[in-house]
Amino acid sequence: MFLNPEELLSQYNPVTGEMPGASMVKRHLSDLRGCFADTAAYDATMITGNPLLYSVGAVEPAGGDGDLHYGVGLLLPGKIGDEYYMTKGHLHAWRPAAEFYFGLTGDGVMLLEDEATGESRIVPLRPNDVVYVPGHTAHRTMNVGNTPLTYIGVYPAKAGHDYTTIAEKNFCCIVVERDGKPAMVERPD
Amino acid sequence: MFLNPEELLSQYNPVTGEMPGASMVKRHLSDLRGCFADTAAYDATMITGNPLLYSVGAVEPAGGDGDLHYGVGLLLPGKIGDEYYMTKGHLHAWRPAAEFYFGLTGDGVMLLEDEATGESRIVPLRPNDVVYVPGHTAHRTMNVGNTPLTYIGVYPAKAGHDYTTIAEKNFCCIVVERDGKPAMVERPD
Repeated sequence: MFLNPEELLSQYNPVTGEMPGASMVKRHLSDLRGCFADTAAYDATMITGNPLLYSVGAVEPAGGDGDLHYGVGLLLPGKIGDEYYMTKGHLHAWRPAAEFYFGLTGDGVMLLEDEATGESRIVPLRPNDVVYVPGHTAHRTMNVGNTPLTYIGVYPAKAGHDYTTIAEKNFCCIVVERDGKPAMVERPD
Repeated sequence: MFLNPEELLSQYNPVTGEMPGASMVKRHLSDLRGCFADTAAYDATMITGNPLLYSVGAVEPAGGDGDLHYGVGLLLPGKIGDEYYMTKGHLHAWRPAAEFYFGLTGDGVMLLEDEATGESRIVPLRPNDVVYVPGHTAHRTMNVGNTPLTYIGVYPAKAGHDYTTIAEKNFCCIVVERDGKPAMVERPD
């Protein structure tokens, strides 16, 4: 049956990432233990506090086979050592599920890693950029600028989020600042 | 296998709707014969020319089960009689497929009609508005402002477009200007 008008319309703030009525998940540095390669820099930052790294709000109108969900992310600027603030990253529990990311504000990069081969790519995510994340691809977002990064992600309702595989294996590569620009390098041992 | 970097990134112009490298479909008034209720106003406009009503560009990176496509629409301002310039409107060939519309610029309205019941709704589509189009729902976009309307639509790759059902049956309702504002009314005989 048809949805009510208020279920057909949602709104987001492209600068703050806020979405009236949507539930927001907030991730602090402590939630990303093990993600950053420079553990000394991680520990040094944690001594001074536990900063907010990002928030994500989600809109999930329905969960059927052809349905879609979307989320709005806000990722703050900063670095741990040479590594940019990042999201945890995830695979989709239903591996064939793709995702589109739409850059709203700020200067971002997405790290994509093919699960089967480990092949990795970085792709820019800036205002009016659209990044296609194929199925079977781990993906993580980095803020490589000096201002908050906001973006939209759209994915099949049945995609699901698998954070566990990343938490156990991590990504093969990290994204660090080199000569003032983002560079993808192999994760040190 | 993994896509090349240039296949992972696309870009759009939120003001003009242009997308470098994407194929664009353009629809003129003659392509919408039978859509507008006021056939005298339609014929009168056609005598003076055949104006462009809208264009749509599509990005279709892959066509698998969990894949997604997206398009950017540009719908010009104008009216035929009291009816706002509109798109043809469509159902998805795969009826369960939903779609998200993201307003970029201008002032729009979406007309949604449940295929089974004929129940209809209008929902605003303005910058930072997101309209959820459920499966089994015919949808059409109107420009109700004085400037070009641009928007993004994201849908499952396997959704497909069914224009024929609308061309034969049309929508039950039309959207007209009443006291300077859009109003949904039943289509006259």
